Amino acid sequence: MSTTPLAESFGEPAFRDFSRLCIHTITTRPWAIEEAAKHYSRSGIGGISVWRDALANRNIRETSQLLRDHNLSVVSLCRGGFFPHLEAAGRQIALDDNRRAIDEAAELGAPHVVLVCGATPGQSLTESRKQIRDGIAALLPHAEANGVRLAIEPLHPMYADNRSAINTLGQANDMAEELNSPYVGIAIDVYHLWWDPDLEKEIARCGKNGHLYAFHICDWKTPTLDLLNDRGLMGEGCINIRQIRSWVEAAGFSGFNEVEIFSNRYWAEDQAEFLEKIKHGYLHHS
Amino acid sequence: MSTTPLAESFGEPAFRDFSRLCIHTITTRPWAIEEAAKHYSRSGIGGISVWRDALANRNIRETSQLLRDHNLSVVSLCRGGFFPHLEAAGRQIALDDNRRAIDEAAELGAPHVVLVCGATPGQSLTESRKQIRDGIAALLPHAEANGVRLAIEPLHPMYADNRSAINTLGQANDMAEELNSPYVGIAIDVYHLWWDPDLEKEIARCGKNGHLYAFHICDWKTPTLDLLNDRGLMGEGCINIRQIRSWVEAAGFSGFNEVEIFSNRYWAEDQAEFLEKIKHGYLHHS
Repeated sequence: MSTTPLAESFGEPAFRDFSRLCIHTITTRPWAIEEAAKHYSRSGIGGISVWRDALANRNIRETSQLLRDHNLSVVSLCRGGFFPHLEAAGRQIALDDNRRAIDEAAELGAPHVVLVCGATPGQSLTESRKQIRDGIAALLPHAEANGVRLAIEPLHPMYADNRSAINTLGQANDMAEELNSPYVGIAIDVYHLWWDPDLEKEIARCGKNGHLYAFHICDWKTPTLDLLNDRGLMGEGCINIRQIRSWVEAAGFSGFNEVEIFSNRYWAEDQAEFLEKIKHGYLHHS
Repeated sequence: MSTTPLAESFGEPAFRDFSRLCIHTITTRPWAIEEAAKHYSRSGIGGISVWRDALANRNIRETSQLLRDHNLSVVSLCRGGFFPHLEAAGRQIALDDNRRAIDEAAELGAPHVVLVCGATPGQSLTESRKQIRDGIAALLPHAEANGVRLAIEPLHPMYADNRSAINTLGQANDMAEELNSPYVGIAIDVYHLWWDPDLEKEIARCGKNGHLYAFHICDWKTPTLDLLNDRGLMGEGCINIRQIRSWVEAAGFSGFNEVEIFSNRYWAEDQAEFLEKIKHGYLHHS
């Protein structure tokens, strides 16, 4: 097994163990969280990011204890957001749900909630961006009271119709700086941002401001067959993950490398075999 | 039939006839170019943009005459580009093919060739961008000798893997300014650029520099089921085409509004019925 020349050319050292690897529960979605925890833990994987659906019908404090019993750090809760709506009533429902997400993160012991900020077809992106900013501002007292931070995740421009009106790291940086709170930062995902010619510069800016809360990895496949659920495993696509990681680390980030893969193809596989592929991709292409 | 509130809110006047409408041959792909010309012309449509596959096995000068006999202006030839390749031999083949595209445009009487600039998985976007710039520079003497201009078309970031490393209008403006030739400008397509928070500013910059050669319209559907061939008809999606048109016209553009739709769904329909839908979308949502 060899490291790709592309990755090696940036001189960032490869990982030698899985202590800084975190996996999102959605990545191995066929597994219940208890099964995922058991498998991650056996491999010495250090972290888990929990999607809210994985907590359904569970006592969150007990689940938190179970994760810690497996030596897993809870890295984030996914996800809140979806602030923009045409009607004020819809925006209020979104705020209430975000407050519940903050409560769940506090119970689980997750340091932050990742925000997929939302967008609404039929409403201008300018208006959606304003509603996002106002929504996050409205959440801040509850976030602060619970000691839970909020991580704005800029999403790929192909999701600007209905998932996020925040589509570049530059925009996320602008918003985090405007909100200017120790409870608002940013989650950087290579899948969404790899194409951006300003990425290196904006990562440095994000780190300098203390806003770099999280780093998500996966790969962009050619061809990509589905806009949502055809993400690639590290090494399977065209993203120079190691180069982007070098920028993130140069910006002062030393947290987990979170594998977040939505893939109809991988969800259909045996998840234990898929986990081995994740581990290989992490060591050799991240 | 009513105009959408979103479009009306910007006060740009709606079109009243089809004299400034241009259709790309690929939009009605099931029609041979002769049949397309007949149908477009009957509706009083003023322009046609010709894809190279529509010219296969034809005498280009005779086809040009046929289009003009139908009172159709030839707006552009689509397409050249695809400059980046890992090997120099591949880049040379691309240059040769681009010179043929320039020859075809000259024979057809098309004022410019649209460039889908290209990208190569496994090569950095930085290197691909350099190869694009060098490729266009290498073409300039041939373009100038033939009186054919080159229009850089920035493509949506979801095509950064293998179709174009030029993904924002800002990048295209940078490149056109660097190349600094009366034979290099830009084609603006709402599908690729609608999400960009800097779009209005960059359109103004593009126009001020005399680089705004072409304006393409269609719509972004929610959901989009295919990355390539699921574009929407004007009015069917979330793009505020009329607002973007107001920016383009404020930047001094008074050329054709080119409908370029790749759609498995519409290609499967009766094309005469589809043409009526295009005309309706043009009048009411563009």
